[in-house]
Amino acid sequence: MSEPLFPSGAVVANGGRHQYDAVRAQTEALCRPLAIEDYGVQPMVDASPPKWHLAHTTWFFETFLLRPFVYGYQPYHPHFEYLFNSYYNGVGTPFPRPRRGTLSRPTVAEVLAYRQHVDAAMQPLLAREDAEVQGRIELGAHHEQQHQELLVTDIKANLGSNPLKPAYCAATEQADAEQVEPIVPLAFEEVAGGMVETGANGGFCFDNELPRHKLWLDDFALANRLITNAEYAAFIAAGGYDEPSLWLSDGWTWRQQLAVAAPMYWRHADGVWFEYRLDGERELLPDAPVTHVSYFEADAYARWAGARLPTEAEWEAAAQVRAVQGHFADGVLHPQRAASPRLGQLFGDCWEWTSSAYGPYPGYRTLAGTLGEYNGKFMSGQQVLRGGSCATPPGHVRPSYRNFFYAKDRWQFTGIRLAKSACL
Amino acid sequence: MSEPLFPSGAVVANGGRHQYDAVRAQTEALCRPLAIEDYGVQPMVDASPPKWHLAHTTWFFETFLLRPFVYGYQPYHPHFEYLFNSYYNGVGTPFPRPRRGTLSRPTVAEVLAYRQHVDAAMQPLLAREDAEVQGRIELGAHHEQQHQELLVTDIKANLGSNPLKPAYCAATEQADAEQVEPIVPLAFEEVAGGMVETGANGGFCFDNELPRHKLWLDDFALANRLITNAEYAAFIAAGGYDEPSLWLSDGWTWRQQLAVAAPMYWRHADGVWFEYRLDGERELLPDAPVTHVSYFEADAYARWAGARLPTEAEWEAAAQVRAVQGHFADGVLHPQRAASPRLGQLFGDCWEWTSSAYGPYPGYRTLAGTLGEYNGKFMSGQQVLRGGSCATPPGHVRPSYRNFFYAKDRWQFTGIRLAKSACL
Amino acid sequence: MSEPLFPSGAVVANGGRHQYDAVRAQTEALCRPLAIEDYGVQPMVDASPPKWHLAHTTWFFETFLLRPFVYGYQPYHPHFEYLFNSYYNGVGTPFPRPRRGTLSRPTVAEVLAYRQHVDAAMQPLLAREDAEVQGRIELGAHHEQQHQELLVTDIKANLGSNPLKPAYCAATEQADAEQVEPIVPLAFEEVAGGMVETGANGGFCFDNELPRHKLWLDDFALANRLITNAEYAAFIAAGGYDEPSLWLSDGWTWRQQLAVAAPMYWRHADGVWFEYRLDGERELLPDAPVTHVSYFEADAYARWAGARLPTEAEWEAAAQVRAVQGHFADGVLHPQRAASPRLGQLFGDCWEWTSSAYGPYPGYRTLAGTLGEYNGKFMSGQQVLRGGSCATPPGHVRPSYRNFFYAKDRWQFTGIRLAKSACL
Amino acid sequence: MSEPLFPSGAVVANGGRHQYDAVRAQTEALCRPLAIEDYGVQPMVDASPPKWHLAHTTWFFETFLLRPFVYGYQPYHPHFEYLFNSYYNGVGTPFPRPRRGTLSRPTVAEVLAYRQHVDAAMQPLLAREDAEVQGRIELGAHHEQQHQELLVTDIKANLGSNPLKPAYCAATEQADAEQVEPIVPLAFEEVAGGMVETGANGGFCFDNELPRHKLWLDDFALANRLITNAEYAAFIAAGGYDEPSLWLSDGWTWRQQLAVAAPMYWRHADGVWFEYRLDGERELLPDAPVTHVSYFEADAYARWAGARLPTEAEWEAAAQVRAVQGHFADGVLHPQRAASPRLGQLFGDCWEWTSSAYGPYPGYRTLAGTLGEYNGKFMSGQQVLRGGSCATPPGHVRPSYRNFFYAKDRWQFTGIRLAKSACL
Repeated sequence: MSEPLFPSGAVVANGGRHQYDAVRAQTEALCRPLAIEDYGVQPMVDASPPKWHLAHTTWFFETFLLRPFVYGYQPYHPHFEYLFNSYYNGVGTPFPRPRRGTLSRPTVAEVLAYRQHVDAAMQPLLAREDAEVQGRIELGAHHEQQHQELLVTDIKANLGSNPLKPAYCAATEQADAEQVEPIVPLAFEEVAGGMVETGANGGFCFDNELPRHKLWLDDFALANRLITNAEYAAFIAAGGYDEPSLWLSDGWTWRQQLAVAAPMYWRHADGVWFEYRLDGERELLPDAPVTHVSYFEADAYARWAGARLPTEAEWEAAAQVRAVQGHFADGVLHPQRAASPRLGQLFGDCWEWTSSAYGPYPGYRTLAGTLGEYNGKFMSGQQVLRGGSCATPPGHVRPSYRNFFYAKDRWQFTGIRLAKSACL
Repeated sequence: MSEPLFPSGAVVANGGRHQYDAVRAQTEALCRPLAIEDYGVQPMVDASPPKWHLAHTTWFFETFLLRPFVYGYQPYHPHFEYLFNSYYNGVGTPFPRPRRGTLSRPTVAEVLAYRQHVDAAMQPLLAREDAEVQGRIELGAHHEQQHQELLVTDIKANLGSNPLKPAYCAATEQADAEQVEPIVPLAFEEVAGGMVETGANGGFCFDNELPRHKLWLDDFALANRLITNAEYAAFIAAGGYDEPSLWLSDGWTWRQQLAVAAPMYWRHADGVWFEYRLDGERELLPDAPVTHVSYFEADAYARWAGARLPTEAEWEAAAQVRAVQGHFADGVLHPQRAASPRLGQLFGDCWEWTSSAYGPYPGYRTLAGTLGEYNGKFMSGQQVLRGGSCATPPGHVRPSYRNFFYAKDRWQFTGIRLAKSACL
Repeated sequence: MSEPLFPSGAVVANGGRHQYDAVRAQTEALCRPLAIEDYGVQPMVDASPPKWHLAHTTWFFETFLLRPFVYGYQPYHPHFEYLFNSYYNGVGTPFPRPRRGTLSRPTVAEVLAYRQHVDAAMQPLLAREDAEVQGRIELGAHHEQQHQELLVTDIKANLGSNPLKPAYCAATEQADAEQVEPIVPLAFEEVAGGMVETGANGGFCFDNELPRHKLWLDDFALANRLITNAEYAAFIAAGGYDEPSLWLSDGWTWRQQLAVAAPMYWRHADGVWFEYRLDGERELLPDAPVTHVSYFEADAYARWAGARLPTEAEWEAAAQVRAVQGHFADGVLHPQRAASPRLGQLFGDCWEWTSSAYGPYPGYRTLAGTLGEYNGKFMSGQQVLRGGSCATPPGHVRPSYRNFFYAKDRWQFTGIRLAKSACL
Repeated sequence: MSEPLFPSGAVVANGGRHQYDAVRAQTEALCRPLAIEDYGVQPMVDASPPKWHLAHTTWFFETFLLRPFVYGYQPYHPHFEYLFNSYYNGVGTPFPRPRRGTLSRPTVAEVLAYRQHVDAAMQPLLAREDAEVQGRIELGAHHEQQHQELLVTDIKANLGSNPLKPAYCAATEQADAEQVEPIVPLAFEEVAGGMVETGANGGFCFDNELPRHKLWLDDFALANRLITNAEYAAFIAAGGYDEPSLWLSDGWTWRQQLAVAAPMYWRHADGVWFEYRLDGERELLPDAPVTHVSYFEADAYARWAGARLPTEAEWEAAAQVRAVQGHFADGVLHPQRAASPRLGQLFGDCWEWTSSAYGPYPGYRTLAGTLGEYNGKFMSGQQVLRGGSCATPPGHVRPSYRNFFYAKDRWQFTGIRLAKSACL
């Protein structure tokens, strides 16, 4: 370790053992509703098996904490470095991603034993007063929270693509209540432009949220809520999927090649729309936010609605006035929560597509060494999403948080918030 | 049922309940060494998950026996007809084959319950004195035996493609003994030509073995044993994979595109060849028969060796003089048996590639109805293999038995027996 | 040259300079209707540009005659060996076939100059009394005749896939006459089985027609003419393309993936079928033979019609009783001829799909050296066709002639002759 | 025409007939060195045949000027609308782009006749005093200039991928001189940040350059010249293509899948680098700018060099202080010019990759109607390039000009200019 990743005073953890244990336990709790058979399935290249997430998050601590900081530590298994490396080429060529679903071994029990082993070995480090160690522990915990969200979305992809459509959790009263509660009319709230600052402003953050920097914003207006299922169904009914002028060129190609005609998980039968949710397939809730749409669909919808998507700077500027908690241990993600996104908030319902491509902020620097592969190397060809979803661990998200996916991706809980330029 | 598939006097079963129970039990016995996680994996499109085989063989009895012959029978599950249909378009569009490994549900326990349910429902039929019913039961039992072999080869593909290389069964003394037992030198035994008859000659058979028919054979010579690993390694060492003149045109393209340089399951490390077997990866046994080669490789080897592969008629004519038992209940396939093919016999070690393309015999007729999709619709673009392998249930094979695979396929236990034309 | 390809007394040419000149001139004559732009186009991977055929046939004489037999001969251009080698790996890795249409240079004029150069250099060899030389010249002439047919079919693919649908030649009276001439009803002519011989019986032949060998044939019946467009249209109208039970498994996959619903070059508009022919697009001639069908389509049609396709042995046995001229210089292929296949003859209208896979005859031997790549290396995965087509140079075909294409191929003039087993 | 695209006072043309004629003549002049055979080739999907460019630019005037503004105008040919539409879905489904190289007809002569016809029909419109008409004429002229550049790059792709490596033009003294002229050392010129404005500021521009808008820039530094071939060769020699930490994730995948190891058109032989240029293949000029690199390569090079690529705003801010001529008729592109990009200028040597993804400026609006498909629908997944290349018609480029390609594209004349953030 020639160069510390987390020099003292920069991004230091403040949680310690308690936080570590809470996050690790929560990951396993999310898997508890699963049958053994569910742990191994990869229904699409993007959606990794739950077992892989359990192992990979453990590999992260073994690779970036135990091996460099615990003298004499021996890897738990000689092949796990290869099998559970996601994309860190600095660690070696990873096992091919599309084949993660072909690994019946190690078994679930063996992976849980691996977790236990690493957790035990981590105990001395959790108490070590060393900014670099504490910084990496906090990074590892946030990393694991990201995989908690992926666990949920990948389980949804697994169960939701099965013709039997099994539920991951029971339906909740909240979901039913949502149908009757009246929603507010869509409105645009004007935001005055000017010089603003975006980027992280203290507390834990990923490298891609730094440095905080100035930028100029023109006046704009942001919708007061997300687009609903009913509103999106109207777009479909109006022929939105068949009108090329509404679509980006790559979006039209995507829509044509895959014959896309509705959000992922929607199904049309006898004139009625159904939606697969984590609590099973049910008739579409008209007032719930539309989710599992690609950027192409979000952009086409916005054009059809006479609006546009916000830039990430607009979104962040608007979000800065709404306080959100910034600490990873503040909350726990319950399965039922992920079954039912709501409409109104900026945080924690659907990841909101922005019109901004994912790139570096002025003066951006990656972490040193292999951890530098964390965020920076994905800065081409993807779009920024903001705000977190119902599957994001509560407290994990913040105004400066930047998520990113390809414009075609829609297995995450992605939604649509409209914006407009000023002088409407 | 407008037309009986098995009119009285044609191919009637003679086993009944005892046979049925034995075959059904044996399928489950083959799965006993598996972890739950192993049941769901599809490591390549051709190799279906064990769970799928367990369900599909059951679906066969439900579809072709219970539904047409048991008054008022209700299908066990409304989706299983769709999920576990292999390729019978007459029954409806099957679930896409490449996605069989994405189905975590039904679970293993649910599939075993399905088997129990169908087995119970079958009991009255097993005793029914009806040629059509008995014929179908026997067909279903032979069908299930075919899937027993696929179970073994697909489990091998699953475990063998896992970097952990887990064993399916323990190593056997027989395998070790094989290394020291001296093998006979390769020799060609001359067979006189003339008018012969090939095709099934009484007893159970598949439709593609009929009708028995006359044909003319020139004199030929057939090797006294299969090609060994050591002999095949010599072909590799001599540059056989790099000499296009040895290869069929499509074979050379295949070899180039996939960078093939050895049989499937072989691995070269530090100058030594290793082979994954069902009892684990171990150093290559020089005197064991080479197996898991494609037709392209078998043909190239034969050309290199100054010989050729036999036609299926030559093979069958030679096999007719060696008696084999013809009844499906005669034997039981043990896992250890499948780990170690032997060299000498025509039957039961490696499927032997023939130079004959798979097609209809003169006067061939498919079964009526949907069961007619069983064999006939594959009669283009594939090669015939003869003799059965170490993974074939003992007693399942016979001189007239025709197996068929694409020239590129090699996940079955396929081997090489050479032949020569006369006047050598 | 260690070993002569054509030892004296085997397959010796008897034509000499006159034949050579006639064939070479005829190739160029077939190109005369083309615009310069037409010479370079490759509308599908299989269909090479006319310019490439002009050069490749010349490369054949340069490679197999001038270089080995003319002392001190210098290749015309250092890159032509690479550019115009088709598939002879023994000569080196050929230029990638799918990119033949990307070569604007050499220009047409440059290729014609190459032809002139080689023709001049060939003159002394044409008179040389040497069995090997004469054998190769005859082989080269037959090879060039094969490419004359490909020229015609590849030009048809080029012009026929162009939305402007330009004609290659003017329409002929014969074509129009065909519409009014009454056709004979379809009937099956019975042929008695027994021991027969097939394979070449003297005169020039390709290696794959040898050796002549005995075989046993059961009684069979062969249709008295090819299937007509009207008959095939009835198959379409009856839903033949939508009934999976009529199709081979690979055929159904092919039909589904490419959404095939009619023969190549057919187009349906306002309830009328049109067909692109070399004399332009016109309304379907009901009594002309259906052509440009794949083996899958031919086989499905036969099943629908309650018949089957003949084996190549049946076809050849039937053809032996009808004399055809066996010499390559006997006839000249005129463009107009290729626009209009007729129904009745076994020879020279449509290549007739047989149910036989292309493989070696008993005792088959390839030519020595690189010329051995001519026919033998294609003996897997293809079907045999017999009889020649309207695009085959008159006199080029004979009863023992074996053409071969993949079951999916249909840009050749391929047609359907039905057969039945005895006891109808 | 419900809504004018170019309302008076917005972006009005000031050229008229003279400009139109000059641009149209220049397009044909660029084709004059071609053989007829060269006009039809499409060596890669992106690179259209020259004949297609000649026709498509003509189709543009026919579709957007003659049909809507000339009463009673009849299209020249009923199929040309389909054949020569590039991507305007509003006009109908275009002929598939990958098949442009399969169209031997219309011939070159027929396309030139089409051009003549449209030019004659355009004469009355050229003089019409109508802001919308004049605006569209200017747009059409700029559109044709864009295709002049594509003509040059697509011809280079055609001839450069041919193993014969024919030259498009003769070598020039200037190119040779370049080798001896000393180049200036690479240096970074600091630019003070602050509030700037970017976007078009009067004169003709495309819609994507509008509106001019304010933005904040931090201090930065821009390299004084492009990266040279010698500098890039050092990156290769240092193993830059084999070090994953230098590459974006998608870039590494691209490099691995296509085995990329050097810029397009480079060839290594006997320890020497050669480069195909429009004047033929020659030894690499060490002091010429490296060109034909993808964004991935440019980005990896910058990381290796301890720098980064500029944002488009940085580039434009720096460019605003250097005057360039803004009028399309000011200059003529000569073939020889395109053979030899130079190092020093911001304009007219290589398109300079920026780190900015291509997106809409704040308040961006597309043109109304089908012309709105011109630029806006490509605003996802592509990178902005700035400055024009040696193949850009002189005078066509300007500080606000935004070109855009996918990160993988490199058949354009693309190069590398480095930047750094302040406080170096």
